[in-house]
Amino acid sequence: MTKAITISEVGPRDGLQNTKIFMPTDAKKRWIAALAAAGLREIEVCSFVNPKLIPQFADAAEIAAFAMTLPNIQVVALVPNLKGAERAAETGVHKISLPISASEAHSKSNVRKTVDEQVDELKRIVALRDALPAGRKMEVNGGISTAFGCTLQGEVPQADVLRLVERIAAAGADTISIADTVGYANPKQVREMFVEARRIAGPKLDAAHFHNTRGLGLANCMAALEAGVTALDSSMAGLGGCPYAPGASGNVITEDLVFMLEAMGYSTGVDFDKLIAARRILEEALPGAEFHGHLAKAGLPKGFKEAA
Amino acid sequence: MTKAITISEVGPRDGLQNTKIFMPTDAKKRWIAALAAAGLREIEVCSFVNPKLIPQFADAAEIAAFAMTLPNIQVVALVPNLKGAERAAETGVHKISLPISASEAHSKSNVRKTVDEQVDELKRIVALRDALPAGRKMEVNGGISTAFGCTLQGEVPQADVLRLVERIAAAGADTISIADTVGYANPKQVREMFVEARRIAGPKLDAAHFHNTRGLGLANCMAALEAGVTALDSSMAGLGGCPYAPGASGNVITEDLVFMLEAMGYSTGVDFDKLIAARRILEEALPGAEFHGHLAKAGLPKGFKEAA
Repeated sequence: MTKAITISEVGPRDGLQNTKIFMPTDAKKRWIAALAAAGLREIEVCSFVNPKLIPQFADAAEIAAFAMTLPNIQVVALVPNLKGAERAAETGVHKISLPISASEAHSKSNVRKTVDEQVDELKRIVALRDALPAGRKMEVNGGISTAFGCTLQGEVPQADVLRLVERIAAAGADTISIADTVGYANPKQVREMFVEARRIAGPKLDAAHFHNTRGLGLANCMAALEAGVTALDSSMAGLGGCPYAPGASGNVITEDLVFMLEAMGYSTGVDFDKLIAARRILEEALPGAEFHGHLAKAGLPKGFKEAA
Repeated sequence: MTKAITISEVGPRDGLQNTKIFMPTDAKKRWIAALAAAGLREIEVCSFVNPKLIPQFADAAEIAAFAMTLPNIQVVALVPNLKGAERAAETGVHKISLPISASEAHSKSNVRKTVDEQVDELKRIVALRDALPAGRKMEVNGGISTAFGCTLQGEVPQADVLRLVERIAAAGADTISIADTVGYANPKQVREMFVEARRIAGPKLDAAHFHNTRGLGLANCMAALEAGVTALDSSMAGLGGCPYAPGASGNVITEDLVFMLEAMGYSTGVDFDKLIAARRILEEALPGAEFHGHLAKAGLPKGFKEAA
């Protein structure tokens, strides 16, 4: 039986947040529509951050509302705080994700709050979710950032991350994801972390999120899969990076990840030709940006067939 | 206990064979000396191919003889045939490696022989080894190329590779390595292949050799490690590719591989600062060549310690 893996395309959020050029709203829409048409099942479409801090997301509400008109995708938005969650809720997105740093130094740099304060913010967001009108469903994800180390703080003890997993679950989040924000993780560390986190959070443990800063992105995805993870974040063309984590660079590359998974017999639902077509839209809309990816360059192996 | 992994640096051979610029002999020597000084335990220093076909290796004998003067390294040379093996034997190298394609199409393109003819060539080389004077030891490796697919032939059945493992062992090779010459392999395929190959060849099964053409190099290294492999080929700056396999591109990047292994607690013996110093020599000697590698760009994580 073919096992399905959910790839959450975070390019429109994690990718664009670190891109200096403003991607025109229409191009964003065409790109997101093309990503959905390529078969990606989940797309993180924007961030409801203060647009004064990241002007790229000045059109967040319009983008989120547009994405909600597309069939067959789970629409996700990042929210840095309760205010962002309120704005996101108005657009009707299926899921919001609140970043909560395992590193105090990154927490202060990224959301200007201590870790404790950000956990309290999560509780307020959970209350917002619970107060939504009957029939209006919006999942809340707690996304643990800098879980494998931090360029500001250095080492981040596994125990700190696991305690945060426990607190996020207790606060009432629907799902928990764990992120290597700055590309420090190695496969051994990843396997151990996800095995332990699953012991604590059970099925609430959701996506693994890796950056390819040191080239280990796909190896870390493999390790997460081996630990039972079935949802992986990645970004088209490997765009990405946290503007408030010095030295953070591109995410795992969606095209390469899809190839690896399909070659191994996992089902991602993604059609390669359509995925490459979506990449062309991105390339045309962001001239001069740095695009990564081996598969877009090398093409599929001769006679390659995608999994059923 | 820290487990030791042997990284066989194939840059001076696999890397340079696909590089259009001739690297001056003196620069090659300085580079190889720097690689050895960085702690790499095995270096494939040249190819005893006909220099009319690959002029880069016109100085193979001089390079091999020089490498034999360096302490604490295993010196390896590629030989395409018996004539190359005879030339290599004169230089006293510790090990020679004969490529034997699992794909008939690549075999004819690469060594102008059928697979059967190349296995016969291996037998003649084993006889050469056995006829060396007492006390003169030269290991013979049979290196199975295009083991995970071929840009000329397409799919390469696992059974063809395993039959070749058996024949190479029976022919008297000391070791057997398995290579993904064109970057088609995926981790699932790699794990299965090395588990099965070990069942046949036992401790004769030696290195895994991957190209990063589709970005899966390190993930494939992980899979090989999980299958019990303890020797991995890689190339500094990810140079490499087979001139007779269309579409083949760079090897697994040594710097990134060393980082992954050391971060996971494996011991490679390599010192990072010295490794980067060796890369500088390469960069200066090959202006305009395409150098890869995440670690050389991003640096080590804050507070990172190499394994003991």
